[in-house]
Formats: sequence, structure tokens, C-alpha cells
Amino acid sequence: MITALAGGVGAARFLQGLVQVLPEGEKLTVVVNTGDDMELHGLHISPDLDIVMYTLADLVDKAKGWGIQGDSFNALEMLRRYGLETWFNLGDKDLATHIWRSSLLNSGFTLSQATTRLCRALDLKPALLPMTDERFETKIATELGLMHFQEYLVKRGAKDRVLGVVFEGADRASPAPGVLEALQASRLIIVCPSNPVVSIGTILSVPGIREALKQTEARIAAVSPIIAGAPVKGPADKLMEGLGLEVSAYSVAALYRDFLDLYIMDERDRAQLERVQALKVQVALTDTLMRGREDKLRLARFILGCLENLSANSAHS
Amino acid sequence: MITALAGGVGAARFLQGLVQVLPEGEKLTVVVNTGDDMELHGLHISPDLDIVMYTLADLVDKAKGWGIQGDSFNALEMLRRYGLETWFNLGDKDLATHIWRSSLLNSGFTLSQATTRLCRALDLKPALLPMTDERFETKIATELGLMHFQEYLVKRGAKDRVLGVVFEGADRASPAPGVLEALQASRLIIVCPSNPVVSIGTILSVPGIREALKQTEARIAAVSPIIAGAPVKGPADKLMEGLGLEVSAYSVAALYRDFLDLYIMDERDRAQLERVQALKVQVALTDTLMRGREDKLRLARFILGCLENLSANSAHS
Repeated sequence: MITALAGGVGAARFLQGLVQVLPEGEKLTVVVNTGDDMELHGLHISPDLDIVMYTLADLVDKAKGWGIQGDSFNALEMLRRYGLETWFNLGDKDLATHIWRSSLLNSGFTLSQATTRLCRALDLKPALLPMTDERFETKIATELGLMHFQEYLVKRGAKDRVLGVVFEGADRASPAPGVLEALQASRLIIVCPSNPVVSIGTILSVPGIREALKQTEARIAAVSPIIAGAPVKGPADKLMEGLGLEVSAYSVAALYRDFLDLYIMDERDRAQLERVQALKVQVALTDTLMRGREDKLRLARFILGCLENLSANSAHS
Repeated sequence: MITALAGGVGAARFLQGLVQVLPEGEKLTVVVNTGDDMELHGLHISPDLDIVMYTLADLVDKAKGWGIQGDSFNALEMLRRYGLETWFNLGDKDLATHIWRSSLLNSGFTLSQATTRLCRALDLKPALLPMTDERFETKIATELGLMHFQEYLVKRGAKDRVLGVVFEGADRASPAPGVLEALQASRLIIVCPSNPVVSIGTILSVPGIREALKQTEARIAAVSPIIAGAPVKGPADKLMEGLGLEVSAYSVAALYRDFLDLYIMDERDRAQLERVQALKVQVALTDTLMRGREDKLRLARFILGCLENLSANSAHS
């Protein structure tokens, strides 16, 4: 069994390659960030779960990396006519997901159970698990006050200076059923190239998950989401800067050092090799940029190969 | 002030004419059937309120008489892919209405308040009132058991033999705020050409409404929805037959006789004139079929003219 920790677009693209090169019979479980989840017009929206689900179901709008290919936005247009908030791009097909999920949640199903039903309806092979079934909201502290991460990112276009990040609900949250079990039972764990603060950082903030990563027998690799000092996608740089972190591949490795066995870093960051190795983490350099299908397959094969070959004595345990 | 009692398509078409010939400064209140309301995928759908609202906002799909002109059905397609029930035609723009309404209801607003907000957002001049804010469901008794009216009509195509009609919630329902006041304060009341059983009959079943119609000083007219022994639209014939009622213009007048001053019947039903007059109801004959804009205007003008000229001593009071 292999488990991956995932945020949104970057993770989904990586996972799309991984599912195609998985060893025969190997089960993949994906633990997904739910800190971006929000209620909008009474609907429960799980942006990262949707991105990963749509991508693995081959439904995703490939150009954007989120939403459903060829979707229309007529409901959104009508919501705008009604004078409602429409900064969050809700496609019409996409709405069906939010409507069904919300309906299930309102009927007493947990987010995990709703996710399982959605994924089963789309014939998804990997098991998708929300990091937690409980309410958990990532808020960004700015000069305008605390705002929901999606408000910061989508509504405000990530233009506000980040003063801090608050994980609302992290103190009371517990990992969704199956999360700790998957980390415990896996032989390999991969931290996808996702935002280290608001995607992976969020997952790690759920009580019990970081401990489980430290204690598992699994070999753990992470793929750097930072190439040559900049994130491939998203506002990771602004968030890292806001928290006083150096925006570098090294800095991400340092955030994961207490559980990491192997760090996959881009060739372009070769200069940081020694600094990362000084964290007592093995490093493998490759081209980590995923331009298309071939890049995804190559990167996934590379990581699986490195993990299989990782010498037993280098494992963190 | 004029008040109308309305069901769906037939009423909406009639009201479209009425609003254009209303005397200057005359306020129109429309009390709408909510017996067809239902929860679907966690959304509160009010078919008749929507039909009347879309029609008066000039948004309605004119060919069908319901839904929004030029709407797409992509969310529905995705719900189908998820394996959910999709027999009820939910357009994408239409969904925005259900989403906002449901969100308001879940936030504690009443159906009247939600309706007012929707109508205000669409700049509707007439005041739309649901007949009741409480849960009220029209069920059709068939050989397959009790089914929701929409299930009988849309899902099953009105093909099941009607054994009876049940107004679930009628015993506990009360008229929505403003309904009795409108009936009391109006000088004219018009019962639209709607299904006498599941549209007008539903409204009349809400405790207090029939009494208010009997007691008001307003002159009350009804337009027959039956022409030459058949409904212009919808399953009124099947429902009336199921209840052992004759399917005729006369039969509808008989259902309203205790509060009716004036009955507008189609020329084609002239043979029933004496029978209806025997109910002590004044009758006016005209072409009641609304083929287009001109027909609607003519019918509305005709009815207003007849009501204005109704001799005082013929009023039911």
C-alpha cells in the first residue's frame, strides 16, 4: 500500500502520473487537505478533494487544473443576477458535486463517507480520504483581518500581505477514519508537490498525523513544490514569506525533516543539496516540472524507483 | 388592490396579461400554490412560485412554460453521472434559484421571506406570496401507493390511475403572512385558470383561506381551466376523474360556488351556462384560450371589465 498526502492542482497532476505507474495490485490512498473547504450559498465545497477527484477521474479542466472540462457557468451567472457573491468559480457540472456532497452531509453522512460515494460513482481506483471529517478552516491573517484561504486566494487574488496563517479547528480535529491506519500500514508514503503551508502544513496540523508519519515503518518521500526559489503554481511564496520562511526547496525539506527519508528536489536547486543533506534527509535530484503526461510518468517512476532503492539504514525509523 | 390565486403555467400566462392591463397604481398580490414543493438533492424546490416568478420577470422558457429561457442542463447531466434521480428537470440557471432559496431557508428565513428576496432581486412588481410557509405536500394516491404530486406528474408522466389526493400538512398549515390580509383588503380577487384540485384546491385547503374568500368584501372571479371538457394543460382531467368529479367547466364552478361572484367560461362551454347560473354565480363567456400576448391582454381586460361592472347586488356578500 502507498499513501500520498495531497493538496490541489500540483498534487493532482503528480498523482495522475503515479496511478499509471503503480506496481500491479498496489493500493493507493490519498489523504487530502480540507483546510480550503468552505460553505458557499449553503453548499459544502471541498476544493482540493474535487481537484484530485476530477483529475483522477479524467474529468478535470486540464488548462485550469481545477473544475470540470467543458463546464458551463450558467448557475453562477444567475447567482450574480440575484446579487450573490460569485467570486468563487462554480461550474454547472461542478455544482452537482457540491449539491450531492452537501445533501449527504446534511443527511448525516461524514465527509469521508460522502467522498467515498462520490469517488465510487466516478469509478475512482485510489481511495480518497479527507484529512479530517471535522470542520477545519485555513484562515489567512492580513491587514484587512482574518480571511478564509479561498477568499485570500480567489476573491482577493492573493494580493494582501500575509501576516500569518491560522488553522481554525486544528485543536479539535481528528484524522478522518482510515488516515492513521493508512499511514501505519503503508510501505511507501509520498508527500505530493503541494503548498507546504496551506496544503501539507494543514494536513500535518491535524493532531496525530505528524506523529503517525514519525512512527510509521513506511519510507517517506516528499517532492519539492519549489523550483529555483519559486512555487510552480499558487501562492506558496507569499505564504512562506508571510511566516518568515525562506522560499526555497531547502525550506520545505526543513518543514518535513522530522519524518522525511527522501527529498525529491529539482535539478535547478542543486546548489541547496548540501544544506538539505545536513537535515539528515537523502536527496534525489531530477527535473520535477510536469509539463505533460510524459513528465508525470517519468517523475512518478523516478520517485518509486528511489523509494524502492532507499537503503534500509537510511530510513528514519 | 387585486389578489390572484395561482398555480403554475396557466396562471403565469394569465398573470402576464393581467400585469399589463392593471389600472394605474393598483397593487397586485399573487398567492401561489406550494403543494408541489419538494426537497430534491437537499434543495427546496417551489415549482409554481418559480413558474410565476420567471414568467413575470420575463425569464421563462416560453415554449415549455416553466424553467428559464436558454438554460443548460449540465448540472443535471452530472447528477445523472453520479447515479442520482434526475427525472425532475433542473436547469443550471434554475438551480441558482433553488440554491439561494434553500440557503435562505436553512439560515432561518421563511419561504415568504425567501420569495420576497428572490422577487426583489428580479425587480418583480407584483407581490408573490406562498400560500403557506409551512411544509405542505400534495400527494397522489395511486395503485402504487402515495406519491408526491411531482413524482406523479413528471417522473411517472401522470400515467397512474388517481385514487385520491392527499394534502399532507393541510391540517397544521396556516396561511403565509399577508395572505389573509390581501384577501381581506382587496377589491378584486381573481382565481387564475389553474388546476382546481392540486393548485387552487390546495390553496383552498389551507385553513382560513376559504373562509377569508367567503367573508371578504372583494368581488371574486374565477377563470375556468377547462375548455370543452378538457384542461388546457396538465392533468386536471385525470385528477378530477380520480376524485369522481365531472371534467367540465361547470364542475370547477361548483368547487368554488361558496365564494364566487363571477365565472369566466369559454364560449365553447356555452351549453353549461344554465347549470352554472343555477349555482347562483354570474357567468361571462369569452374565448379563454391564451395563444399569445394579444389573447392574454384581451382576457385580462375582459375579466377586469366584467368585475368592475358586476352589479353590487350580485356580489356574494
